[in-house]
Amino acid sequence: MMKQREISVTIRRARREDMAQVYKMIRALAEFERLEHTMTLDLKTLENDGFDCDDPAFTCLVAELSDGYIVGYALYYTSYSTWLGRSIFLEDLYVQTAYRKNGIGMQLFLAVAKIAHATPSKRLDFHVLSWNPAADFYKRLGAVDMTIHEKWHHFRMDDRCLDRLFEHQSSSS
Amino acid sequence: MMKQREISVTIRRARREDMAQVYKMIRALAEFERLEHTMTLDLKTLENDGFDCDDPAFTCLVAELSDGYIVGYALYYTSYSTWLGRSIFLEDLYVQTAYRKNGIGMQLFLAVAKIAHATPSKRLDFHVLSWNPAADFYKRLGAVDMTIHEKWHHFRMDDRCLDRLFEHQSSSS
Repeated sequence: MMKQREISVTIRRARREDMAQVYKMIRALAEFERLEHTMTLDLKTLENDGFDCDDPAFTCLVAELSDGYIVGYALYYTSYSTWLGRSIFLEDLYVQTAYRKNGIGMQLFLAVAKIAHATPSKRLDFHVLSWNPAADFYKRLGAVDMTIHEKWHHFRMDDRCLDRLFEHQSSSS
Repeated sequence: MMKQREISVTIRRARREDMAQVYKMIRALAEFERLEHTMTLDLKTLENDGFDCDDPAFTCLVAELSDGYIVGYALYYTSYSTWLGRSIFLEDLYVQTAYRKNGIGMQLFLAVAKIAHATPSKRLDFHVLSWNPAADFYKRLGAVDMTIHEKWHHFRMDDRCLDRLFEHQSSSS
């Protein structure tokens, strides 16, 4: 039986060649949530967006075993506050099922939090599903639920909404 | 008396020299919300972050009168979805009090929505205070309140939280 408590990982910045492994985890997460049909991003675009362009759209950290196998990742990008400046938004944090409860998620999260702490804004934002047990984990670390405390709601216009909006605009103008 | 319904504005991308006017509006908004003490960003940093660096952190659109006076702005940045790719996050949308109810906010919003519609992800995200009347305006345009529909909450670790977190980490390790 695997002694999960003794798993040791290295947290490091992802390289282009890690993204195939990361992409599998992104897909696994989408499939778990039964939302894989909404995932349109392919591996090549993910690689381009992070590594093969002048303005990388994100930064990815990975949790790697000593044999090079990647068991988790955190992906964040630079957001902007007109009050504080450049800031960090954590988009994804994921650890493969078999490797959970070893503190790997915590190590990934703290690595991103440390990067956020080093930016001028000293701020880290992220979205959490309210029923996700991770919400309590973040609160114990001191995170504030801005939706509860300040009534911030997250609004979205998706592709169908924007298609409709500009159909309507062009037909009415 | 000013005939507000006849005000005509040009919506265009902000230039570096517009940011002094935009910065005044950012401050006015912070003062209105009585949160100006939390605003640490200065004009020079705002200009640098948007115009004087290799990787601008945001894009700003302005609503300009024929005499060059700027009466409103929208500021957005590129976010990232691991399912859809590059996406647009609208951080601020503001019209000066005396120029409201002329459809200027709508023109600014539609300009940003059109840019979002042209990205591969075709998605526009933003945060709205649930008590803000603008929430209904966005819903009428087809925006979905993801906090209500999918239970997404916005979490934040601010400077004090991150300071405490890394104090604790260094004293306990």
